[in-house]
Amino acid sequence: MEKFNGSTIFETTRQPEEKNWRRWLIGRPLRTADEGEQAISKKVGLAVFASDAMSSTAYATQEIMFILAAAGSGALGYVFPISVAIVVLMAMVVISYEQTIHAYPGGGGAYIVSRDNLGELPAQTAGAALLTDYILTVAVSISSGVAQIASAFPVLFPYRVWIAVFLVVVIMLMNLRGVKESGTAFAIPSYFFVITMLITVGVGFYRYFTGTLGLVVNPPELMHEGAFVAVTPFLLLHAFSSGTAAMTGIEAVSNGVTAFKEPRSRNAGITLLWMAAILASLFMSISYLASKIHAIPSEEETVISQLARTVYGGQGILYLAIIAGTTIILILAANTAFAGFPRLGALQAADGYLPRQLTLRGSRLVFSWGIVSLAILSSLLIIVFQASVTRLIPLYAIGVFLSFTLSQAGMSRRWWKSGRLKPGSEVKETGSILRYDKAWWFKMIINGVGALCTFIVMIVFAVTKFEDGAWIVVLVIPTLVFLFFTIHHHYKQVARRLSLDKYNERADISRHRIIVLIGGVHRGSLAALNYARTLGTDVTAVHVGLDPSEVEKVRSKWEIYGEGTRLVILDSPYRLLMEPILQYIDKILANRKPNELVTIVVPQFVPAHWWANLLHNQTALLLRFTLMYKPGLVIVEVPYQV
Amino acid sequence: MEKFNGSTIFETTRQPEEKNWRRWLIGRPLRTADEGEQAISKKVGLAVFASDAMSSTAYATQEIMFILAAAGSGALGYVFPISVAIVVLMAMVVISYEQTIHAYPGGGGAYIVSRDNLGELPAQTAGAALLTDYILTVAVSISSGVAQIASAFPVLFPYRVWIAVFLVVVIMLMNLRGVKESGTAFAIPSYFFVITMLITVGVGFYRYFTGTLGLVVNPPELMHEGAFVAVTPFLLLHAFSSGTAAMTGIEAVSNGVTAFKEPRSRNAGITLLWMAAILASLFMSISYLASKIHAIPSEEETVISQLARTVYGGQGILYLAIIAGTTIILILAANTAFAGFPRLGALQAADGYLPRQLTLRGSRLVFSWGIVSLAILSSLLIIVFQASVTRLIPLYAIGVFLSFTLSQAGMSRRWWKSGRLKPGSEVKETGSILRYDKAWWFKMIINGVGALCTFIVMIVFAVTKFEDGAWIVVLVIPTLVFLFFTIHHHYKQVARRLSLDKYNERADISRHRIIVLIGGVHRGSLAALNYARTLGTDVTAVHVGLDPSEVEKVRSKWEIYGEGTRLVILDSPYRLLMEPILQYIDKILANRKPNELVTIVVPQFVPAHWWANLLHNQTALLLRFTLMYKPGLVIVEVPYQV
Repeated sequence: MEKFNGSTIFETTRQPEEKNWRRWLIGRPLRTADEGEQAISKKVGLAVFASDAMSSTAYATQEIMFILAAAGSGALGYVFPISVAIVVLMAMVVISYEQTIHAYPGGGGAYIVSRDNLGELPAQTAGAALLTDYILTVAVSISSGVAQIASAFPVLFPYRVWIAVFLVVVIMLMNLRGVKESGTAFAIPSYFFVITMLITVGVGFYRYFTGTLGLVVNPPELMHEGAFVAVTPFLLLHAFSSGTAAMTGIEAVSNGVTAFKEPRSRNAGITLLWMAAILASLFMSISYLASKIHAIPSEEETVISQLARTVYGGQGILYLAIIAGTTIILILAANTAFAGFPRLGALQAADGYLPRQLTLRGSRLVFSWGIVSLAILSSLLIIVFQASVTRLIPLYAIGVFLSFTLSQAGMSRRWWKSGRLKPGSEVKETGSILRYDKAWWFKMIINGVGALCTFIVMIVFAVTKFEDGAWIVVLVIPTLVFLFFTIHHHYKQVARRLSLDKYNERADISRHRIIVLIGGVHRGSLAALNYARTLGTDVTAVHVGLDPSEVEKVRSKWEIYGEGTRLVILDSPYRLLMEPILQYIDKILANRKPNELVTIVVPQFVPAHWWANLLHNQTALLLRFTLMYKPGLVIVEVPYQV
Repeated sequence: MEKFNGSTIFETTRQPEEKNWRRWLIGRPLRTADEGEQAISKKVGLAVFASDAMSSTAYATQEIMFILAAAGSGALGYVFPISVAIVVLMAMVVISYEQTIHAYPGGGGAYIVSRDNLGELPAQTAGAALLTDYILTVAVSISSGVAQIASAFPVLFPYRVWIAVFLVVVIMLMNLRGVKESGTAFAIPSYFFVITMLITVGVGFYRYFTGTLGLVVNPPELMHEGAFVAVTPFLLLHAFSSGTAAMTGIEAVSNGVTAFKEPRSRNAGITLLWMAAILASLFMSISYLASKIHAIPSEEETVISQLARTVYGGQGILYLAIIAGTTIILILAANTAFAGFPRLGALQAADGYLPRQLTLRGSRLVFSWGIVSLAILSSLLIIVFQASVTRLIPLYAIGVFLSFTLSQAGMSRRWWKSGRLKPGSEVKETGSILRYDKAWWFKMIINGVGALCTFIVMIVFAVTKFEDGAWIVVLVIPTLVFLFFTIHHHYKQVARRLSLDKYNERADISRHRIIVLIGGVHRGSLAALNYARTLGTDVTAVHVGLDPSEVEKVRSKWEIYGEGTRLVILDSPYRLLMEPILQYIDKILANRKPNELVTIVVPQFVPAHWWANLLHNQTALLLRFTLMYKPGLVIVEVPYQV
């Protein structure tokens, strides 16, 4: 023990007692002092932050084709022009985020940018959109990864839901261990994916231009009910919005600027541009080749699988390599969400908009509550939607585009504020430093146009996908925002009530009434009586008379063991336990004088085994929960161990 | 308030506060003093107690035929001889129970007879068997009732499980209201069933003997997998044991002797004989006619339905009347179990072999815990077995025959004891008066042979039905008996520990240490500090240091508001809350002097709405559950309402 400034410090030397299985699953506990972060290079950064974005090339093409298929296999040729349009939009968003990275070297996700530049409501909206989207990222990526596996091994198709849930649990455990995002664990599979994909696409183009590529052998059947529809502008917009799933994950780099080596913003910006270039070229190539080989969108075999076996002329080693690479990158994409969701949750919780528990760090220094919540919510989604990527996609991307829009609108507003400053001056804000920039109007326009475009895409998405499931997200996001503000109101109110402003010193106590509740006269209740008598002299024992013969027994035993304490029998004609006690206490509280203290002493019987609690009325617990809500009562539980 | 013998009685005048929906569902509360029982006549008694037994005629024939069907439709003709054999066995059991009724005018179920004559183990075995069987009665009767409805309205067949569960809930609510078993509510449908059945059978015989009956039109298909087996003795015994389901419910009259008008035993005995006569003749008639019209056992249409539409030549009003009557009697049979299960549960609980809660009477003077438990368990059975009578039947009847055997063995032992008495003398036992009876050896033989027969049938049943599901009951009953004795051991131990034998007066307290746990310095924790200072002068405030900046805040605020109380900071390098507290308290307890009292004061923050508890760490509750198990600690919770 060490004395310091009038208080004593008690050193806790013992390590937390962890169950063995728990230590085996998530590792030994870490000290708070052990925390530290390593800066990462551009090369590793690309692997860490790009897996989410690049993984979407695994399903984006297929999702466009699913929509086009409604107009027959002839319409599938539109997949390439639509992909080009998506890449144009992507370019705008990337330029916009490049600016954000330089403005927020401390990390600028949509939440922080909106909070600092637009206010609480847009910030919480961005938070709701992002949290929803992280959950969907896990569900979509894992479902898509499992679909890849099932394409290669159709025997696993019926078990896809449980394989998906199992993978979510594995990723959750990895994250509870606190896998460092840096390092080769991430880099190897990411580059493996990019390289195998580039090879596949390269070989594909070579065979296409030499005329040896041909069409898919045994393509899956084109699933379609009823007559084919015509190719309308609505159909094309619908397909376009499905394809925008390719853009999810782009914001990851801007969230993680702090992880990069100095000069942070520059390195992060270059990484973002590299990521975008790879993403755009892979996506366009896959779309182009898929339409040339007449791939058919299907739940049973993915377009990537069809492309790979056409390019390599069968299911050889290279085919398996591409399937393995795709599966792994999809699972890593889910892992990105596991990094983002708990951090955003902790930020919002620290601001008082989510339960405080989300800010607590578990034994491995990670935000355990957030990790577990994400795993539960995404598993539920997977189960409800039966791990079907096509059914999940309509829920996806609205959140992404809403956060894109808010983030860019926030940046635009920030440039406008920067234009109001004197040249050369700067202002310190919560998350960044605002400097005058002479090109402020130009940058404002870039971000503004970006915001406008993503806003339009979001509306197109919501309208075209409304019936397919987008309505769910349209309902969920405002509900979440409402919930966040309700939570915030609660915390503000609690803080106000607990505040020591205008705190008056306590007045002297005029009377201390002590009431001992006894169910019978035995060692347990006498222990409670003894304790009650140490608290003061004004002690009353109270027994609820459920059974007349029991009342007689209590009375006569009390004569012997009650030490002269006053006994009150509460009459209970309806055989109720709680109501007579409450009525009695209410009467005492009603007649209370100022500064009168009332203490209720409850004997608590503690059995040796937890299951034995089932064999006893949990009266003490019930009393605790009921009396807790009566102001001015103190509850004393005197345990009696058997 | 009334003074009496040194204690005060506080009159509770207020009626219990019931939620409106609750009062609507189960009615206004009843006073304990309102209890009273009405004696019933033989006519009403027949309706009340016979519905369980008579209802089994609705399925017993069919269940015999299901087994015989394995040997092809030709073997179905054995249904009548098998039914005759069952009626012979029934006659023996009825004679045996007639004797029990006279010996136990206070009501003599298998549990009481075994307890008084055979000892604890047989009694608890009988209890386990009967409780299991009550649950099965509900599941089988309701499932069979729903099967009747589905026979008439095949469109309802896919919803049978949920219809069955809904009916269980309705019967549960009726019983929670405390429907008096007497009265016309029971009599009308029971007699309606008996009369429509007798008419149907009568018309059937008339048409059979006049040669106009013919065969079933469009009988259901005979479901059978694989080749037909030969008619072996095993097959016949198997069919016989299925048919013994007809005997379930016979014991009901002997349980309810007290409900009859004086002379009780005589009236109850006559009622039993009437019931047996009706049951036997209906059962044999149905079996005879079913084989003559070539009825086919089926899950989709019951044999009763086939018989009724053959007798009446179509699905007219008389057909619907018989289906309605059968359905209602089956539902009433479930109701009989709802009368029996809670009473037996309360008896066993009063003897200390089941949780005490089963002896508590709810607001309507019924054993609510037993009623709700029965509803939950039987609903689970219905769901697991998909409301299939044929799959439930193999579980049924073992329990019945086990209780028959024990009850008759008990009676046999009782006659033997009676023979040991001097002529004319009598001995008072727990549940009855044992008198010398000069025909004791004759009566002993009747009960003994009855016990032997039912024992043999039980073994036949267990062997022939073992694979079909009887093994479940063979496992469940001993498990329950083991559980009962474990519970009994626990209660005995608790009673011994709480007993005031050798109780020593308390010694004087040498020191009273008070420890206040504080999470921060605010109005809530200062309220706890103020209370702690009223308990004594030896007060220590303890704060777990999770966050160094928070520790500094607590320290500096404590200087201002701590009123000079000693503050101990518990170091927590692993960010754990409970472990440092436990370690600190363990150290204090280890160094404790004799008669030193340690009190832990915990500020408990009470939000205005229950849901707000989700937004706060439940530290106080966690501490309560952890510290409760440390002997010699008292926990004081000082609530602070926001």
